[in-house]
Amino acid sequence: MDRDAYHAALLSSRYGDQPRPTNIIWNDVVEQQVAHKSVRTFLDEPLPDGSLETMVAAAQSSSTSSALHLWSLVAVTDAALKQRLADTISATVPIDRIPCIEEAPVLLLWVADASRSAALTKELGSDPVVLEHLDTFLMASIDTALAAQNAALAAESIGLGIVFLGVMRNAAKKVAEIIGLPPYSFVAFGMAVGRPDPQRASAPRPRMPQSAVVHDNGYQQDRYRPYLDGYEEAYRRFRNSQQMSPETWQSSVQEAATSMAYMGGRQDLRDMVTERGFKLR
Amino acid sequence: MDRDAYHAALLSSRYGDQPRPTNIIWNDVVEQQVAHKSVRTFLDEPLPDGSLETMVAAAQSSSTSSALHLWSLVAVTDAALKQRLADTISATVPIDRIPCIEEAPVLLLWVADASRSAALTKELGSDPVVLEHLDTFLMASIDTALAAQNAALAAESIGLGIVFLGVMRNAAKKVAEIIGLPPYSFVAFGMAVGRPDPQRASAPRPRMPQSAVVHDNGYQQDRYRPYLDGYEEAYRRFRNSQQMSPETWQSSVQEAATSMAYMGGRQDLRDMVTERGFKLR
Repeated sequence: MDRDAYHAALLSSRYGDQPRPTNIIWNDVVEQQVAHKSVRTFLDEPLPDGSLETMVAAAQSSSTSSALHLWSLVAVTDAALKQRLADTISATVPIDRIPCIEEAPVLLLWVADASRSAALTKELGSDPVVLEHLDTFLMASIDTALAAQNAALAAESIGLGIVFLGVMRNAAKKVAEIIGLPPYSFVAFGMAVGRPDPQRASAPRPRMPQSAVVHDNGYQQDRYRPYLDGYEEAYRRFRNSQQMSPETWQSSVQEAATSMAYMGGRQDLRDMVTERGFKLR
Repeated sequence: MDRDAYHAALLSSRYGDQPRPTNIIWNDVVEQQVAHKSVRTFLDEPLPDGSLETMVAAAQSSSTSSALHLWSLVAVTDAALKQRLADTISATVPIDRIPCIEEAPVLLLWVADASRSAALTKELGSDPVVLEHLDTFLMASIDTALAAQNAALAAESIGLGIVFLGVMRNAAKKVAEIIGLPPYSFVAFGMAVGRPDPQRASAPRPRMPQSAVVHDNGYQQDRYRPYLDGYEEAYRRFRNSQQMSPETWQSSVQEAATSMAYMGGRQDLRDMVTERGFKLR
């Protein structure tokens, strides 16, 4: 396929038949980004040498608020530990299991981590009161996500696949205990990493047109409304192509905004993080 | 410079004289990531055509929890609006101004945005109770950060420079009012974007060695300690090279964990987001 046809195919996967941008400035980085798809089925083989180091170099190179580096990474490769974490999470979901947690050769746990700030500050004789504010909880979570997104893209650029696992928060307290997290830290999300199984390939999930989410010089509350029908069609086609049950995007939004079964334990997050030192003041 | 020498230079910028990884799997994506540096001085010219569309395509292609797309972007290019936002933020900091906010041709405001979920759910006759939980606040913030990191790297890949602006939260309530944000949304951070001014170039900021932040199969609380002295030396050299005031990393960590002047208004974040619908339950 020539370059132009490849770019058109990428945008078609991303936006379906909806309006799409016509002036993208393509290069290897942007191609890799737009080609992203979550991978949940992996080959049973370890990561190539250097994979984790490459992901971590990318992660560390992301921006960090005030040079505080408010994240850490726990890389789980031990089969028994991975199984224990998979069992813990699977017990919280209405489906049987989340196979990718146990099948991936590496399960990364991304830790929003102000524990170093707390320990160093106390050693210098001060009380780390700022860490008790909601802003530190947010800042650490943002630092962690910036790092993880860089790691995800780096993984994809070397032929690996990843999926983010917000579901790790379903049992946030147990997960923290299992991996021995100190105060002022919690697992913001997990990430399964491995070589994608070509026999069970996934596809990019569609997004709304750019105009639905980009606002010029002020927020316009109903900006996405004209695009709802077109997005539902793209969403329907995607689910159909993946042999997923038919449901509308709006019904899944409603489900996610109303269902305690959807939360699956994440309703306890506040208690867990406040116990761990993030007072959310 | 040949490829190997370039890679060595990138790692030297990132890790200084500290231990560095020797098995990075290099490609255009990883090179772009490791070369990241925040840019705070911009040329007075608009972004090239297609820049914003490229950044948004990259942002939209990042992962999003449960296909909820919990972010929006407000692109500020109007000079008067940009000035008003710059004035609002500058009033909260001990230094005179934050020049990059007004000097950048585009100020992006990254909005953690559950307002679409709230509106659609209410229209379907349900009460969006899940959105009142801390987990939704976190999920929206993570979605926003993943998108923004992709946009940042895309911008850098087409020759632009960016800096994340957590300082936008210093006046989170006023910023939300100025740009007319609906309930269930807030500005998680800003991002100044423009063509870097080569006369006032910045440099990559050093990070700790990988072993300080990566943990194998369980968190080890004192893992970073052996690296503190080496990191202080890299930090000192960086600040010296940038004509920044001499201070240790540990003293800046202490300052950030203890000083209300450092918070600059972010201590009110909790009140602001709970007023806006995120009850943080």
